[in-house]
Amino acid sequence: MSVLQQAADARAASFDLAAATRAEKDAALLLMAERLVQRADDIVAANAVDVDKARTGGSTDAMIDRLTLTPQRVAAMADGLRQLAALPDPVGDVVRGSTLANGLELRQVRVPFGVVGIIYEGRPNVTADAAGICLKSGNAALLRGSSSAYSSNAAIVAVLRKAVADAGLPADTVQLLDATSRDSVKELMRARGLVDVLIPRGGAALIKTVVEESTVPVIETGVGNCHVYVDSDADLEKALAVVVNSKTQRLSTCNTAESLLVHAEIADSFLPLVLEELMAAGVTVHGDPRVAAYSDDVVPATAEDWGAEYLSADIAAAVVDSLDDALDHIRRYGTGHTEAIVSESVTATQRFAARVDAAAVMVNASTRFTDGGEFGFGAEIGISTQKLHARGPMGLPELTSTKYVVTGNGHTRP
Amino acid sequence: MSVLQQAADARAASFDLAAATRAEKDAALLLMAERLVQRADDIVAANAVDVDKARTGGSTDAMIDRLTLTPQRVAAMADGLRQLAALPDPVGDVVRGSTLANGLELRQVRVPFGVVGIIYEGRPNVTADAAGICLKSGNAALLRGSSSAYSSNAAIVAVLRKAVADAGLPADTVQLLDATSRDSVKELMRARGLVDVLIPRGGAALIKTVVEESTVPVIETGVGNCHVYVDSDADLEKALAVVVNSKTQRLSTCNTAESLLVHAEIADSFLPLVLEELMAAGVTVHGDPRVAAYSDDVVPATAEDWGAEYLSADIAAAVVDSLDDALDHIRRYGTGHTEAIVSESVTATQRFAARVDAAAVMVNASTRFTDGGEFGFGAEIGISTQKLHARGPMGLPELTSTKYVVTGNGHTRP
Repeated sequence: MSVLQQAADARAASFDLAAATRAEKDAALLLMAERLVQRADDIVAANAVDVDKARTGGSTDAMIDRLTLTPQRVAAMADGLRQLAALPDPVGDVVRGSTLANGLELRQVRVPFGVVGIIYEGRPNVTADAAGICLKSGNAALLRGSSSAYSSNAAIVAVLRKAVADAGLPADTVQLLDATSRDSVKELMRARGLVDVLIPRGGAALIKTVVEESTVPVIETGVGNCHVYVDSDADLEKALAVVVNSKTQRLSTCNTAESLLVHAEIADSFLPLVLEELMAAGVTVHGDPRVAAYSDDVVPATAEDWGAEYLSADIAAAVVDSLDDALDHIRRYGTGHTEAIVSESVTATQRFAARVDAAAVMVNASTRFTDGGEFGFGAEIGISTQKLHARGPMGLPELTSTKYVVTGNGHTRP
Repeated sequence: MSVLQQAADARAASFDLAAATRAEKDAALLLMAERLVQRADDIVAANAVDVDKARTGGSTDAMIDRLTLTPQRVAAMADGLRQLAALPDPVGDVVRGSTLANGLELRQVRVPFGVVGIIYEGRPNVTADAAGICLKSGNAALLRGSSSAYSSNAAIVAVLRKAVADAGLPADTVQLLDATSRDSVKELMRARGLVDVLIPRGGAALIKTVVEESTVPVIETGVGNCHVYVDSDADLEKALAVVVNSKTQRLSTCNTAESLLVHAEIADSFLPLVLEELMAAGVTVHGDPRVAAYSDDVVPATAEDWGAEYLSADIAAAVVDSLDDALDHIRRYGTGHTEAIVSESVTATQRFAARVDAAAVMVNASTRFTDGGEFGFGAEIGISTQKLHARGPMGLPELTSTKYVVTGNGHTRP
């Protein structure tokens, strides 16, 4: 079936889905969870096809681990759907409301987008997660996973579609797109009018392609060259904890720190400490000459290091002469994801928070906190690094639009 | 100067502007207003160049009237800026806030987009209006007006820039782009990373071009094929008032009704009344055969009529057999702007409001109410017909993004 036909089917499904009650949607989510567990063996068997292919194709052990499904991992997917059922429904929320001078009742109400396209790489567990988040927010989902997980995704989606239909909602609420060619991505990007929003989740190259070529509105996610700036007024102990945690708590996430900026006044006391601790944790520090002066193990930073999203045990490090120099550096090399300051000075933290142009500013806290789960959203479809519509971790409300409903009694405009 | 250079200058200005207080911005708006009045003669003189050119070029009287500035019209522009100064500042509003279980203080705060590009046609008063709305919401404005108003716009922008600078804010808060070639529009659409959002205001062709070709995120405005559906349970008097007002109160606006749908059960009693009143008001009714049965003066509707945004004294009209048929018709031909129902039935109005996919749904009220002024927003930059970011009339908050500011005390993620 063509992507356009699938998109048209999704659109048709979206009309019923938009009018579905929370109870109907939650019942579908719970049935989806139940069926995943019941059919775990079939899903694991389908997954084995993908895993064999990956092994033959020479994938790394880490890649194969990410791809592999076990009954436990399928159960975790089901748990995720159950957690979604427990979250409040954003649809129907009255965002703004008033009675106008002429008596008209104005209500701005949250409504689903309609059809959401998600392009993602890697793990098959994203499939159930994305389908569930879209369903809960009243949206039909067009899922374009990676070809490496196609057999797994097809098995998961078959189970989910049957469960959705058995729960009384349209099966086309969840559809998987062909992942065997690039054409399905291209068609999806051109399905303006049928698809309301596209969310690419994956590497920088994928996101760049979608952002540049899509006529469907896009929510850009994820690339993070996050900085930690240690101010002259920093508490050294907090600074050490925040820097090390931001870099090493997990290496491959978009909210991991990739750059360290240290105020010159505090460099003598702080850099020896932080270099030692980072290096003890196995981190390679790519430093400018002023950083390199504190350790022979610092690798000289090249121009590329300042803009790098390493996603590995590496960090770029520079000494700056002022908070404003740190802001300039961040403006030049940052990706608008998360920027942190460590300082005891209210003046410094206020200026930094006001002037950094990013989805999240951390004051005396690790960059790793930029996360829907940490923020208490209960579900997250990605972290937006754009400014339109949603910025930062996106929960269920970020997957909705609004509609004005204006009620009168024969009102006309004079 | 190239558009990219102007965009870079706007970006630089936007950093200071984002940190400007409400008092600073309001002072600038008031000085802009004062200077416009002081320099009204110069502006009117510059406008005369445009008007002469338009007259020589054979523009219609209506077009020339729209283009012409008088001291009174310049004073009205100044009043608009003063009204903006009186409105609350959306920047700094805390949209969401909580203290997390670990003690982190989470705040989602409204921040300016940064740089807003506005592409518009026609009237030079939009120039001051757009510049003021952008400034009040903390954004630097790149204004690309029409070539027909270039001399007027240049004079206005020169006055505004001087006032902004004299008020202590960066002059590059307001910049006019070259309107003599199409290239400036193209460059603006490709200035991703420097320009945060583009808002096209004008005809359908302009909007389509920008939506399809821009890599900068776009807020789509304005095309309106608005329907009024008169339900079987309608109060005839209210229906008559709403239909006639929606169509005739003003002919050339995007919230003017262009299509009328009448439930078959009420056609006998309602259509003779409404046809007579519409025709008496000079409206040509393009009807399907079931409508034409009620009057010899009904022009047979063609396939194009159902999707037409006439912006003139014309209306398409059809009889439908049910509310759901009306919904199907609106889904097929509507542009997602404003759809109205007239009915006394709660069941009918609730179903219509829930299932119509549009920026605004009017229940027993004229489509003409979809307007920032009528909604009490105080200012309006346009009416969004897309679902991402803003939908419906856009006031000052719709010209902002948000930023998470998370404050800890050395918090790290376990």
